[in-house]
Amino acid sequence: MRVLGIDCGSEYTGYGVVEEIASGSRPNSAPSRLVCCSSGVIRLKPRDSMALKLQQIFSSLSAIIAEQQPHMVAIEDVFYAVNVKSALKLGQVRGVAMLAASWAGLEVAEYAPLTIKSAVVGYGKAEKTQVQHMVMRLLNLEGPLLAADAADALAIAICHIHTASTRKRYQTAHS
Amino acid sequence: MRVLGIDCGSEYTGYGVVEEIASGSRPNSAPSRLVCCSSGVIRLKPRDSMALKLQQIFSSLSAIIAEQQPHMVAIEDVFYAVNVKSALKLGQVRGVAMLAASWAGLEVAEYAPLTIKSAVVGYGKAEKTQVQHMVMRLLNLEGPLLAADAADALAIAICHIHTASTRKRYQTAHS
Repeated sequence: MRVLGIDCGSEYTGYGVVEEIASGSRPNSAPSRLVCCSSGVIRLKPRDSMALKLQQIFSSLSAIIAEQQPHMVAIEDVFYAVNVKSALKLGQVRGVAMLAASWAGLEVAEYAPLTIKSAVVGYGKAEKTQVQHMVMRLLNLEGPLLAADAADALAIAICHIHTASTRKRYQTAHS
Repeated sequence: MRVLGIDCGSEYTGYGVVEEIASGSRPNSAPSRLVCCSSGVIRLKPRDSMALKLQQIFSSLSAIIAEQQPHMVAIEDVFYAVNVKSALKLGQVRGVAMLAASWAGLEVAEYAPLTIKSAVVGYGKAEKTQVQHMVMRLLNLEGPLLAADAADALAIAICHIHTASTRKRYQTAHS
């Protein structure tokens, strides 16, 4: 399974594609591995109009989807914003990100921030740097620390893969 | 000038295309007329996922733009929402509406609700039915009352035409 995680923001939108390399079907075979296929941050020009910024997000995400061919898209479900104005701005970016997925025929799964941090760090109120370190460890990445927005996007993708695997194991055990 | 007004909503999104038929250039020539070219409401299926709803809004608005060939798009600038969750939902629709305009190479103008009602009814705190009646009068429409969302969208388009005309007259007077 290959998942594109998107961390929507009105200035920076992070993205990360994670693939689960399945384990063998025998009981003693190695566990499945997670591989980072691509990650980065879509940076918007502060002086551009909101309409142009949204166009840039849509184009960039559509290009990433076309190149990386994910099976699913996962994004953060937001319940909190500083105020209505910032919620509207964030909603605009989120809407365009969901459209890019839907336009490419992909389903969109949404996860609450607490669920994402719990899945990756094991603690729902983890700090940003803890998420960055754990994402790098889970994906076996070396080198400098990932940008926070890219790490968050990869965390969302990892969260979806964990959730889907758990659901699959549950269904197998109860079928 | 032909303007597409869009009244974004998370359940119903109204649209209305208004054209200003220019007056002659002589001082005694008749004043310019406003004509309603098209109007309606994009109704979303409550059971569809948000991603599908956004796809429907984008497709519908893109089709309207392709058919009606407006020169500009005008939308309401929102500062108020019941809560963060509804602001996020509204923002998603708004983002996709702005993207449809920008994708077609059109500029987007934003107007505060007070400005729109003042331009159409002459009173910033006018009721919904007053807006519906005045829009029908200004566009010379007869028959049953327009749907509120369609009337709001036409009001936004009329507001843009008024604002642009005023700006033009001001520039002419001061050049």
